[in-house]
Amino acid sequence: MTRTPEHLTVSTIEAWEAVRARPPLVQCLTNAVVTNFTANVLLALGAAPAMVDIPGEAGAFAGVADGVLINLGTPTAEQRVAILEAATAAARAERPWVLDPVAIGTLPVRTSLAAELSAMRPAIVRGNASEIRALDGSGAGGRGVDAADTVEDAATAARRVADATGAVVAVSGPVDLITDGASKARLGNGHPLLTRITGGGCALGAVMAAFAGATADRFAATVAAVTVYTVAAEIAAERAAGPGSFAVAFLDALDDLDADTLRARTVIA
Amino acid sequence: MTRTPEHLTVSTIEAWEAVRARPPLVQCLTNAVVTNFTANVLLALGAAPAMVDIPGEAGAFAGVADGVLINLGTPTAEQRVAILEAATAAARAERPWVLDPVAIGTLPVRTSLAAELSAMRPAIVRGNASEIRALDGSGAGGRGVDAADTVEDAATAARRVADATGAVVAVSGPVDLITDGASKARLGNGHPLLTRITGGGCALGAVMAAFAGATADRFAATVAAVTVYTVAAEIAAERAAGPGSFAVAFLDALDDLDADTLRARTVIA
Amino acid sequence: MTRTPEHLTVSTIEAWEAVRARPPLVQCLTNAVVTNFTANVLLALGAAPAMVDIPGEAGAFAGVADGVLINLGTPTAEQRVAILEAATAAARAERPWVLDPVAIGTLPVRTSLAAELSAMRPAIVRGNASEIRALDGSGAGGRGVDAADTVEDAATAARRVADATGAVVAVSGPVDLITDGASKARLGNGHPLLTRITGGGCALGAVMAAFAGATADRFAATVAAVTVYTVAAEIAAERAAGPGSFAVAFLDALDDLDADTLRARTVIA
Repeated sequence: MTRTPEHLTVSTIEAWEAVRARPPLVQCLTNAVVTNFTANVLLALGAAPAMVDIPGEAGAFAGVADGVLINLGTPTAEQRVAILEAATAAARAERPWVLDPVAIGTLPVRTSLAAELSAMRPAIVRGNASEIRALDGSGAGGRGVDAADTVEDAATAARRVADATGAVVAVSGPVDLITDGASKARLGNGHPLLTRITGGGCALGAVMAAFAGATADRFAATVAAVTVYTVAAEIAAERAAGPGSFAVAFLDALDDLDADTLRARTVIA
Repeated sequence: MTRTPEHLTVSTIEAWEAVRARPPLVQCLTNAVVTNFTANVLLALGAAPAMVDIPGEAGAFAGVADGVLINLGTPTAEQRVAILEAATAAARAERPWVLDPVAIGTLPVRTSLAAELSAMRPAIVRGNASEIRALDGSGAGGRGVDAADTVEDAATAARRVADATGAVVAVSGPVDLITDGASKARLGNGHPLLTRITGGGCALGAVMAAFAGATADRFAATVAAVTVYTVAAEIAAERAAGPGSFAVAFLDALDDLDADTLRARTVIA
Repeated sequence: MTRTPEHLTVSTIEAWEAVRARPPLVQCLTNAVVTNFTANVLLALGAAPAMVDIPGEAGAFAGVADGVLINLGTPTAEQRVAILEAATAAARAERPWVLDPVAIGTLPVRTSLAAELSAMRPAIVRGNASEIRALDGSGAGGRGVDAADTVEDAATAARRVADATGAVVAVSGPVDLITDGASKARLGNGHPLLTRITGGGCALGAVMAAFAGATADRFAATVAAVTVYTVAAEIAAERAAGPGSFAVAFLDALDDLDADTLRARTVIA
């Protein structure tokens, strides 16, 4: 499939229009710190969030959701059961699910859970460079949610994770790297303020699940999710006086987005 | 009791003044997504929030709180124990408690918990049309927190739930329907942006618990809670550029409310 | 050690510069209501938050974090295990940790946990007057998170808690009292709007952990944390229209702070 920047810009607009035309139902099993922001990001995007994350409900819901996010930021024992239930059901029902292996590497519980989940056919794996290297087994692990490695350090690891899992892999950083093993794109939108609010990365995982739920081409869906998200961040940064007002303006900008603005601002290489 | 729109407008002002004169202590056992927003809404209203939701503490606290909210949005196993403890203690101590059966219908854990709780004498039951129909056993269930049914679809179900539980039932929608089985009111304030932020409905349940804790007449308290909440939403919407700034302006508007504004804007039919 | 207001003003600027020069990694085991706000406060301050609070990870992380916050606002059974794990590891590794005994006194689970933790060498204990009196065994307990006692009521209790635990004790109120048993300071910055948003006190505990992670002198670190936090609150209040916009402006003000502003505004007695 042709993956030129021009094609990806067109498919980004189309994917965004698909989300708006038929709001995908996105199930989030995510960390306690960012649930509120994540749900608000999905609503501002035009998707329908559902934070169903208890055993006995998570699997049933994953079988009908359009997309599922599994984020390992605060994986309590009960949520770990629900996560495995949801991943199993999503894989069985062929619903796309996103794995965000937050802060794996040195923290043992989530690291072994991420290894187990990466064998359960995620559609998309999202992380910073340290997390993707840790998932590949080639990194030393980050310091909490900070990436000690650069995106380019993680390029080989990203390709290997894509090959091993069958997922599209997205490495977040100043330039985002997207690869499915064969194709590769570098996405140049974004703003440092996204790293100054909690959930700046985590909510992107939910947006990827929304786009994967609205667009069959998972590579294009991942590119679109990152681009829409980071373009909104740029617009918000222009209006913000700091991280507090940035988070507010970011939700407004996601809600207010239109195809022309998206087309004019998209930077794909 | 006379329930004319004129009487209900007067009792709404009086109930709001009662909340401001003596801040009710409101215990919330609510979902992980909206705890922060809910506590901030109660503070902006002038009430005192307390999110005491662990077994061994929830029951003791419910016996002294002025009002209790039980919201089933993310009912972990431990929270389910605390919820039953709180409902039992509130009923025994005759403290008003509000049941918000979020997304019941198809999700099995919360659906059976809601059935059990509805027999424990809630003062108020709040939900969207699909949730109220599901509680009545007459609906097909919603798609997560979205209502598939209209408020008018749920009018019969609401009356039946009121009769069966002894609670005032509030059905949220473009026009809110309040009934205690005998009396009925339709409340016309509000703004669609309330559905574009997470917790827009859930925090209303906490506000109902605050009003029920400050006003003996539960029908009037429910009408007042919805009216104060949705009038503040209208004011906020006039100042907002999107859902992010709406949530911020909503807290400011709740805080800044006065009796004259409330009287001038109230729409009760 | 000399603890004049002039010295403490100088050490406050130095401590703030130390936080900015090398962002401390702050682990938070805190309540579900305020995790998001707390993480955003730490990011705005310039610190690196990590909300690692599950058993099997909390202890390992506490051994490498620069500072640890333990807040008892919503202590689930699983979090209680993680809390004891983290406090043990932090004490063993001589990492400073902050105890915030939220709403202890009448709520039994957290009250006994706080008693156990206070013997595990916290660096700083933070609370309102009722909480500090309850920890001392001399108070009747508050009504949830509200303080029924005044700061001056708690002065004797604060000194006794400092002597018993070896910690610096900070009592929050209109004037904040800081004591390590020997030295004492009264801090006059702040704004009532801090009490109108949820997490206004809880996030301060995390900021204390950040300062204790960047400054060896724990008394000076505590004074600096309170002063930086409450100066930012004053600046935010000048820009806010109510509690919603105050929380946003507070994050912006924390981010935007500079040494000259801090020096000009600091009120220490």
